[in-house]
Amino acid sequence: MSFLDRFAEYPIFDPAGYVPLRGDGTEVGYFKPDFAERLRAFPQVFVVDGGAVGLHPGLDGHDARSAAVAEVVADLRAEGFFPHWRNELFPVAGSFSAPPVFSIERGAVPTFGVRAYGVHLNGYVRKDAGLFMWVARRSPHKDLDPGKLDQIVAGGQPVGLSLRDNLIKECAEEASIPAELAAKAVGVSAVSYAIERPEGLRRDVEFVFDLEMPADFIPSNDDGEVEGFDLLSIERVAELARDTDAFKFNCSLVVIDFLIRHGVIEPDHPDYLSLVAALRR
Amino acid sequence: MSFLDRFAEYPIFDPAGYVPLRGDGTEVGYFKPDFAERLRAFPQVFVVDGGAVGLHPGLDGHDARSAAVAEVVADLRAEGFFPHWRNELFPVAGSFSAPPVFSIERGAVPTFGVRAYGVHLNGYVRKDAGLFMWVARRSPHKDLDPGKLDQIVAGGQPVGLSLRDNLIKECAEEASIPAELAAKAVGVSAVSYAIERPEGLRRDVEFVFDLEMPADFIPSNDDGEVEGFDLLSIERVAELARDTDAFKFNCSLVVIDFLIRHGVIEPDHPDYLSLVAALRR
Repeated sequence: MSFLDRFAEYPIFDPAGYVPLRGDGTEVGYFKPDFAERLRAFPQVFVVDGGAVGLHPGLDGHDARSAAVAEVVADLRAEGFFPHWRNELFPVAGSFSAPPVFSIERGAVPTFGVRAYGVHLNGYVRKDAGLFMWVARRSPHKDLDPGKLDQIVAGGQPVGLSLRDNLIKECAEEASIPAELAAKAVGVSAVSYAIERPEGLRRDVEFVFDLEMPADFIPSNDDGEVEGFDLLSIERVAELARDTDAFKFNCSLVVIDFLIRHGVIEPDHPDYLSLVAALRR
Repeated sequence: MSFLDRFAEYPIFDPAGYVPLRGDGTEVGYFKPDFAERLRAFPQVFVVDGGAVGLHPGLDGHDARSAAVAEVVADLRAEGFFPHWRNELFPVAGSFSAPPVFSIERGAVPTFGVRAYGVHLNGYVRKDAGLFMWVARRSPHKDLDPGKLDQIVAGGQPVGLSLRDNLIKECAEEASIPAELAAKAVGVSAVSYAIERPEGLRRDVEFVFDLEMPADFIPSNDDGEVEGFDLLSIERVAELARDTDAFKFNCSLVVIDFLIRHGVIEPDHPDYLSLVAALRR
């Protein structure tokens, strides 16, 4: 087994097999062809031609478009689509800093093939014996990836919050990290991938933060999403990411990024350049 | 001025304007069309057809190919080609870990459009006042980029040395950093680019190391390549990389990579994802 195996767990997204969703002059999402056909039932919202899907030009502005799309999404949900409902709005845009064309329920993001953004925190501890990392075990009752290993804190990036403010909020909710400590997190990297998963297309960008934590801080979780936390040596973390699929797929990439930035995976490693390239697809 | 300007100083390499050099079943270099035509004068070494250049199949093995190419390069040098002669052999291969098809004088690398590898060291100091970085001023007599700012240590990656051993060697030669201190450097990243420069095509990968240096260590240079070293606040380094072209073009990219990894350029910066992507092209 090798670190590169973590990038091969799911098929890489190939736009050739998808129908693009156009908005604001650019491609903001990708549908499977049969789902694009399904959208022909909503001609007042979606304009479907053979090669692409657009929003009806009569829908003016972010709010009108979001409301119209929300109705379609609700209709389809009643038919059984979008089982992983989240009650959270995600922006749909050509890039992270572009104004969103519309916003959409997070549970519909993989079906719409929309780029999603998140924040992931590496909580690490420096001891005399070396580097250690806090790892979360996801609850066995989680909807997606139950029981997998995760970063100490990770969350989606919703509308209307800075990345740093979102991180501080997630730190409190997921691991009871006080704001004063969370504020010391350092934004260090971004990891991106575009893959096909059971829930649909995942075209995600994860903003990565590192936080050196005091040796006496013990994380705890109250919302039932995390079964527990373990403080593992960095060698054990590396082993788990290299030799097993114990980590949730995207969390293993964030771990590999950490191992590279902290010199645990060294430049003389034969896969070094392949790993550096694969982390930003 | 913005950090992104540093990526726009030179035209991005477009393979469409070049004739590929094939070796070992893959493309290992790129020639300007008129130079590829010039190689027709050496049919015992190069096989030139309209779309590509290959090595003569009669040349068997790395050493025979390298010797034959060296003769051609020497002939062309006598005609005025390769003014930036280095007396250093660089490997020519499909990837960093692949066995080299042949080796070639470093001064011919940009004309052959061969991927070149190097090591760059960020030497930084933590003070109460924040982060500081050692910056080298290149000698006004240097052949390439005289007078520009550079990392404290940077060098090409020659044949037959590990990256770490090369870094330790360059640390001694360029900044009189003792091996014991140089060994503490951490491999943290790789920066790549493919651009057109006056000397030819630069398709380079720079392996990046960070070294936290003791506050009382003062670098010094004996080989005349460096005019002097300055210890600058990280804010001043960021300013120079953002608002000026004081840094040598590739050194500015290594600086921007450092600023991202150390949280000086924050994830909420509007160009963050564009910068992360541009550093690995």
